[in-house]
Amino acid sequence: MEIVKYKDRVQIPVPKVNGTDFRSDKVGPFVGPETKTGFIVQPQGRGFQIDGHNVRWANWAFHLGYDVRAGAVISLASIYDAKMETYRSVLYRTFVSELFVPYMDPAEEWYFRTFFDAGEYGFGLWAFPLQPSTDCPAHAEFMDGYYAGQDGKPVKVSNVFCIFERYAGDIAWRHTEIGIPGQMITEVRPEVTLVVRMVSTVGNYDYVMDWEFKTTGSVQFRVSLTGLMEVKGTPYTHTDQIISDQHGTLVAENTMAVYHDHFVTYHIDLDIDGTENSFQKLKLKPVKLSDFNSSSPRRSYWTVVTETAETESDAQVNIGADPAADLLIVNPNKKTKMGNAVGYRLIPGSATGVSVLADNDFPQIRASYSKKQVWVTPYNKSEKWAAGLYTDQSRGDDNLATWSHRNRRIKNKDIVLWYTAGFHHIPYQEDFPLMPMISGGFELRPSNFFERNPLINTKPYSPQPSFNCTFTT
Amino acid sequence: MEIVKYKDRVQIPVPKVNGTDFRSDKVGPFVGPETKTGFIVQPQGRGFQIDGHNVRWANWAFHLGYDVRAGAVISLASIYDAKMETYRSVLYRTFVSELFVPYMDPAEEWYFRTFFDAGEYGFGLWAFPLQPSTDCPAHAEFMDGYYAGQDGKPVKVSNVFCIFERYAGDIAWRHTEIGIPGQMITEVRPEVTLVVRMVSTVGNYDYVMDWEFKTTGSVQFRVSLTGLMEVKGTPYTHTDQIISDQHGTLVAENTMAVYHDHFVTYHIDLDIDGTENSFQKLKLKPVKLSDFNSSSPRRSYWTVVTETAETESDAQVNIGADPAADLLIVNPNKKTKMGNAVGYRLIPGSATGVSVLADNDFPQIRASYSKKQVWVTPYNKSEKWAAGLYTDQSRGDDNLATWSHRNRRIKNKDIVLWYTAGFHHIPYQEDFPLMPMISGGFELRPSNFFERNPLINTKPYSPQPSFNCTFTT
Repeated sequence: MEIVKYKDRVQIPVPKVNGTDFRSDKVGPFVGPETKTGFIVQPQGRGFQIDGHNVRWANWAFHLGYDVRAGAVISLASIYDAKMETYRSVLYRTFVSELFVPYMDPAEEWYFRTFFDAGEYGFGLWAFPLQPSTDCPAHAEFMDGYYAGQDGKPVKVSNVFCIFERYAGDIAWRHTEIGIPGQMITEVRPEVTLVVRMVSTVGNYDYVMDWEFKTTGSVQFRVSLTGLMEVKGTPYTHTDQIISDQHGTLVAENTMAVYHDHFVTYHIDLDIDGTENSFQKLKLKPVKLSDFNSSSPRRSYWTVVTETAETESDAQVNIGADPAADLLIVNPNKKTKMGNAVGYRLIPGSATGVSVLADNDFPQIRASYSKKQVWVTPYNKSEKWAAGLYTDQSRGDDNLATWSHRNRRIKNKDIVLWYTAGFHHIPYQEDFPLMPMISGGFELRPSNFFERNPLINTKPYSPQPSFNCTFTT
Repeated sequence: MEIVKYKDRVQIPVPKVNGTDFRSDKVGPFVGPETKTGFIVQPQGRGFQIDGHNVRWANWAFHLGYDVRAGAVISLASIYDAKMETYRSVLYRTFVSELFVPYMDPAEEWYFRTFFDAGEYGFGLWAFPLQPSTDCPAHAEFMDGYYAGQDGKPVKVSNVFCIFERYAGDIAWRHTEIGIPGQMITEVRPEVTLVVRMVSTVGNYDYVMDWEFKTTGSVQFRVSLTGLMEVKGTPYTHTDQIISDQHGTLVAENTMAVYHDHFVTYHIDLDIDGTENSFQKLKLKPVKLSDFNSSSPRRSYWTVVTETAETESDAQVNIGADPAADLLIVNPNKKTKMGNAVGYRLIPGSATGVSVLADNDFPQIRASYSKKQVWVTPYNKSEKWAAGLYTDQSRGDDNLATWSHRNRRIKNKDIVLWYTAGFHHIPYQEDFPLMPMISGGFELRPSNFFERNPLINTKPYSPQPSFNCTFTT
């Protein structure tokens, strides 16, 4: 009961709070750009059914569950194959396994800000009720989540998920053919997709998590960041005053937004048409043709060399840095009629950053998996959380990289794909006081899964009905 | 008048045509997935005005023109700054400069298929009328294009562009704040954007070109590929029969879809708040802290080193392969109140492939710029077309790379940014007989252009009106 140590730090001016509120009843007068309200009308009604936690829409069927640590868990996702007249398995289970958010200021008040938002906080625990008409469009359906509270009693999170059909004005496929003299044939199928959304606000940041199902068989995984940046007080009011590294951007008077990363790691247990799958790299191999030996005027081309990963180390990928390749999960035991292995392709989107921290830096030891975007492991029921089951004060001895260090066989096994979407965030003034959305993610796209484009036999769009709507606010 | 040479090639079976038609009156019975019709209702009406070729929407104003070679040309795009009470210049002019599409089969019938879709064909010339309700949603507005025909008379392309407000169900910004005991504050602004669309069908492929304007100041450049792949006859009906490189994927009996690339090069003449701009790389610099000298328990962090490109060679970037950096166009003569240079950031999306052809391969000599995604040149009115003014039978002596080889000064000059979205296309069976859309592109995002998030003072969403609609087909 005595003071053993006492520290008094330098005093830093408290940033002004003028103009930092974002609440609509505090920000007026409204001078921002105005847009017109628009909403979706579905004359034939909604296209999806929810039965408990099972969702069916178009050619998709899946289960949507809630987990206090992961948030949304999508499992048993399968797609109807009209040719085979059966549902075929795609995703056994997928969820957000970890979010590693290290800040880049080594000072005493900041060095420890290297958050693991799922393992330390609970990505599902911090998912709050979605707002109708704004977080999700007015025609969305909502679903509740439940977890066991600290007293063991069930706690309900109302409207933790929403599900809606997306009419973004995109096109699923089209072609104009003018090859037949005197004719112009144009055939178009507009795109309608199904979105499952959750928003988790882990303290300052809001993560809008979308899983978008497409009738083509694609699934788009999207993470969008908004909310508040972590800022620190600073004596500076202008960049001209700054002479040493302040580890951030001066976004307002006496307000420094600190550099940081976001690494969002997805656990994706694919079961492509069955449990046993393999991971393949379809590598682009440049071929040179000599001036003398070639009958072709070309001097080069590229072809494809398929490498099937035997063990875990073969499957690690640093996108961008590694040579160009298509990345596939295939079922080597199922072939198309043409003999191609049935598969799905991983297509990275934007946000492909990897960690640049030193390997011996403590946060990096804990998140040592964050230097590769892609890992593949054999299924193991205890390997769900990329930064380990017990993340708090973990020491990196139970994480995705250490498991994978055993270099187990992954060929023709029940395998799990891990993908990390990485954002290096250099703040800009626009991100203050509240950040406009920035998105990243990836797509899983059928690649020799179907015999042909599964949408080729779809009906053309129904003629647009004329309509008359009356509104009452 | 005599036959000087005669060649009879090996006979290859003609592929079956069964099931390759994509016309709705030929593909029945309809077995593909069904989705429900949905369309946009705007109770307050439309939010944009078109005056001739000038478009105004929310905080944006720009000119949309048609060019027979480039297709859409967007110029004089400026954004209203509510704080300064004035429009500020962003884009002087932007258009698609070239599309390089080399195929990867060196055989006599294929080696020359290395198309330049703008310079050899005319990206605007091959833009056909958009179909209402399918190519663009029902609430879209259309614009015609005109060009001088071969007889000098004006030729009209009806509905060559469409313009519509996009209600994709996305969020512009949001935050849930639970830091105040007993309160949960959630504030959300749904996103509405404006899309300008053109579709160009250069023979077999359809390119859906979107320019999406956001109220945040961002512009999303999106190229989406659909249409027909180029295929060749082959004796094979199953992959087991194939023993040598066939330069493609067997997508159907006797049908080989040939490997190829798409490199879509945008000319982007940015005028950020004025004509004189600079190109900057904000490089992530990893810093190591020694165990002994550091007062911090951290062993590393990253900071930012800003490099301003002096000459053209400083500005070439191979995204992914080069170290992580934010890429900015700034106006060094205009600073924010905080002292940050006013700028816009280039954020690459998916499709960041670069050419892997040999430098001495003829198509690569012509498109030698296709090994970097990013180039910056000083403005020169004769440098509009990345593969040269006269692309047909060009020899690579008048292209972006050769101009840039002069290594001119680009600091604080009127500069042009060139960005190439690159797709390596390994075909899959789903791409046949008609390919589902695949997209790539990039975003230009204000970065210290505004003093703060320009949407912070926007009105909250109007309460959703209740409505009653009647439909007549």
